[in-house]
Amino acid sequence: MLGLMQDRPLLISSLIEHAATFHPETEIVSRLPEGPVHRTNWRGICLRSKQVANALSGLGIQPGDRVGTLAWNSYRHLALYYGVSGSGAVLHTVNPRLFPEQVDYIINHAEDQVLFFDIGFAPLVEQLAPALKSVKAFIALTDRAHMPDIQVPNLLCFDELMDAQSAEYAWPELDEKSASSLCYTSGTTGNPKGVLYSHRSTLLHTLMELAPDTFGISSSETVLLIVPMFHANAWGTPYAAAMVGAKLVLPGPHLDGESVYALMRDEKVTFSQGVPTVWMMLFQYLDAHKELDARSLGIRRIGIGGAAVSRGMLERFEGEFGAEVVQGWGMTETSPIGVISKLLPKHDNWAGEELVKLKLKQGRGVWGVELKIVDESGQALPWDGVAFGHLHVRGPWIASGYFRREGGEVLDQEGFFPTGDVATIDPDGYLQLVDRAKDVIKSGGEWISSIDLENTANSHPGVAESAVIGVAHPKWQERPLLVVVKRAGAELDGATLIDYLSTRIAKWWLPDDVVFVDSLPHTATGKLLKTKLREQFKDYKLPLA
Amino acid sequence: MLGLMQDRPLLISSLIEHAATFHPETEIVSRLPEGPVHRTNWRGICLRSKQVANALSGLGIQPGDRVGTLAWNSYRHLALYYGVSGSGAVLHTVNPRLFPEQVDYIINHAEDQVLFFDIGFAPLVEQLAPALKSVKAFIALTDRAHMPDIQVPNLLCFDELMDAQSAEYAWPELDEKSASSLCYTSGTTGNPKGVLYSHRSTLLHTLMELAPDTFGISSSETVLLIVPMFHANAWGTPYAAAMVGAKLVLPGPHLDGESVYALMRDEKVTFSQGVPTVWMMLFQYLDAHKELDARSLGIRRIGIGGAAVSRGMLERFEGEFGAEVVQGWGMTETSPIGVISKLLPKHDNWAGEELVKLKLKQGRGVWGVELKIVDESGQALPWDGVAFGHLHVRGPWIASGYFRREGGEVLDQEGFFPTGDVATIDPDGYLQLVDRAKDVIKSGGEWISSIDLENTANSHPGVAESAVIGVAHPKWQERPLLVVVKRAGAELDGATLIDYLSTRIAKWWLPDDVVFVDSLPHTATGKLLKTKLREQFKDYKLPLA
Repeated sequence: MLGLMQDRPLLISSLIEHAATFHPETEIVSRLPEGPVHRTNWRGICLRSKQVANALSGLGIQPGDRVGTLAWNSYRHLALYYGVSGSGAVLHTVNPRLFPEQVDYIINHAEDQVLFFDIGFAPLVEQLAPALKSVKAFIALTDRAHMPDIQVPNLLCFDELMDAQSAEYAWPELDEKSASSLCYTSGTTGNPKGVLYSHRSTLLHTLMELAPDTFGISSSETVLLIVPMFHANAWGTPYAAAMVGAKLVLPGPHLDGESVYALMRDEKVTFSQGVPTVWMMLFQYLDAHKELDARSLGIRRIGIGGAAVSRGMLERFEGEFGAEVVQGWGMTETSPIGVISKLLPKHDNWAGEELVKLKLKQGRGVWGVELKIVDESGQALPWDGVAFGHLHVRGPWIASGYFRREGGEVLDQEGFFPTGDVATIDPDGYLQLVDRAKDVIKSGGEWISSIDLENTANSHPGVAESAVIGVAHPKWQERPLLVVVKRAGAELDGATLIDYLSTRIAKWWLPDDVVFVDSLPHTATGKLLKTKLREQFKDYKLPLA
Repeated sequence: MLGLMQDRPLLISSLIEHAATFHPETEIVSRLPEGPVHRTNWRGICLRSKQVANALSGLGIQPGDRVGTLAWNSYRHLALYYGVSGSGAVLHTVNPRLFPEQVDYIINHAEDQVLFFDIGFAPLVEQLAPALKSVKAFIALTDRAHMPDIQVPNLLCFDELMDAQSAEYAWPELDEKSASSLCYTSGTTGNPKGVLYSHRSTLLHTLMELAPDTFGISSSETVLLIVPMFHANAWGTPYAAAMVGAKLVLPGPHLDGESVYALMRDEKVTFSQGVPTVWMMLFQYLDAHKELDARSLGIRRIGIGGAAVSRGMLERFEGEFGAEVVQGWGMTETSPIGVISKLLPKHDNWAGEELVKLKLKQGRGVWGVELKIVDESGQALPWDGVAFGHLHVRGPWIASGYFRREGGEVLDQEGFFPTGDVATIDPDGYLQLVDRAKDVIKSGGEWISSIDLENTANSHPGVAESAVIGVAHPKWQERPLLVVVKRAGAELDGATLIDYLSTRIAKWWLPDDVVFVDSLPHTATGKLLKTKLREQFKDYKLPLA
């Protein structure tokens, strides 16, 4: 027997309609690529998104067609978030930081019909255009005065095209499981794979972003969204802000410390989200400007994800900014909320080291994301904070597979998605990442975390960067090799570093050898490229083997 | 093209599983009908709910069967919320405050297969049992020692029955649109009508309850749920508390001021929800105990719905308790969240009368509830805070019709549910109820709010209670008649009261006559029964007609 409740599909268009109806005057502030600050509001975004929908229709875009963007965070990109998905097309946010050959691959794989781009990417677009077979129009996100002088077929000016459209548009009533957006993972192995979100998954994820146990986004918030809108739905915030009518501040390409600080101060930002790299740039700016008082910003919460939060970063935001750090773990495949580091009432009387250690865990599970850690045979491991295993997740905003079935069937027998991460979970459900599954070193049936070793090595003042990989060992199967880039001018040898590590980690975790190199290989997005490192050291003979 | 996200149904069982997994030790505190305080936790509720599911299976309950409860708020009732709905049956919460013939009607109309009841309702159950044709077992929510001595067929003891069950149970993967619970409206006209909620509607409503723009329920909360669990899903809080693992305090039948105060104090309650009547009892208790300091309770928020919040109540909670009042409007048909009175950043610098007036509005729309006000011809009226019309609502947790199609097709042409309320909406989307549509007085094509007239009359110190109804008028179609119960010992006549009103309301709203009576007719739940009053005065001749 079915319930007798209204059968309303969960659609992205409902978000912008809600914002325009209940929060028409709430500001959307953008720092443009050209420099100046631009102001519009939710009513303006809604009208523009309807013009986007009409323009797409004029360009012959059909429901389900992919529409690409190569763009930073701005009101124009925001209008595309709603206009493209709302009209039934699929918003494909392309990461412009990838290598050009990856951008080319992704756009062709997605078969984007139209490509919207920031003028800063005009040279890249001109370079790629001949290879982009599916793209019927290239649309520069700017006004006529700033149009780039490039040679691409069917180059259009966004403002001009949109101004010519009617702002009357009736959003279609789509199946809520329809694809709404597409984002490729920047995998360290193989080609990028596309995650195809649906309206339903997006709306459910958005609802959870309002919860005080996650980001707690409300109408009283001014959110500085530093996470690029080409990364995993920008952590869902462009949607959540509309669902509650929060003020949104979009920094464009201006992610340097000075620009971020100025936006926080001028717009009275209460909450901001970004990766550790961006916060390091903010800290460096503050280091160079001792006269500034970060506490006077009045920012209440800092959301951090994409990489683990360091103790120094946590303490600086708490101590110097007076802000709460909300760490999270997730991935493109998880929309991205996986776990969020919010404390429980039982932690009220925790303090010191114990509390810091808890806060540095990636976070606690939220409704909608079932977690399990399993051993090599798929058996569930206990939640004791010690046992670590492959992390698998399940829920309505987790991917079931990749676009065009790349990678084949990915879910396990219980329908969980294997994240490729190795983690512990404690009895309260707080998850701590231990390593990537492919990077963990398998020594005599036990696992050694390459990340833990690297973090410990990186804490030595003479180390600029380090990487640990497993190298074949006749007795133990694999043993760790530590590869180090010295800090400029530092005096350091392998024995000294092993001595340093020996007081900080278990004896059997100690690397069997240390190698010094001039640089380490990285992906386009700055992650260590251990596949390349392993290839480089595949014939390496450990001294004690 | 469909998205590639996991196809996970939204099910009530996922809530209790989440709570038991991530918040197993968080307390559920109940004041039992027998008096003492009982403590369990989310793990305990989960285990008990699985025993409920197994017991229902043993009793032959099939998916879709209705299972009745006649019970106050307790951990046993909470286990039924999860065990009944989670197993695929439909939880039918019966309001024991209705007249016995209505209870009888409702249980027969729903065809409840089993009836769970609090021991305080044993005499009622014994009286009704012979007429309850569908009920195969009567289960007293108590232990063996407190079993009532009544003559009903197949009388069972809840604790004994559940203790005998396995706590192993695999929740079925239901269609999320399956019926999950049933609640009848206590209509002032005709027979009660059943609202049949689904798992999907319940989960979406629950997600919205976490938003800071509504009740903002989080894991850091201790919620004293005073709203009875037989009213409109107890405003969704039994579900929301599980979704985040909040501590839940359940008062049983003990709603007197002393009991409520003691629970707030002893359990360190941070948030409580109830109707104005309950808060009046709390105020009376405090009036009689001047030595108590309500501010020391530390309660942060008070959720109020079911009837409008008075200025006195708002000011007392703010001033004496230091608590924020979160008013809401909704109805059984809206799950119940309709609108919620949370302020916007623009109100930060509002003060005095203007701010109080805003706070006394029923609230602002939230995502998931589309609002419109329409005139008699169905035309939408402006949101100017002045125009008032029939309030219609649409959204995924709004009813589409009633159980067994009672009342036939109820939605309007655009799929909105007509609430039967008349309201204004201001440009920020704040709704203010003006009247029930059937109570509004239609005078010469214009509408007069009976509620506004009554509130103004009630503010006269000589008035204990008043009601305004429309009486036929040859020229104006209808004109208002004011029916008044004087306060004991008060000296008051009609002319004095009209004088009093004339400085407070528009001249054309002034009642054409005042009648004094000893008492006014009410429904079982305490609402003015204007149908009866209109019947009583149907031949009344206005003096000026």
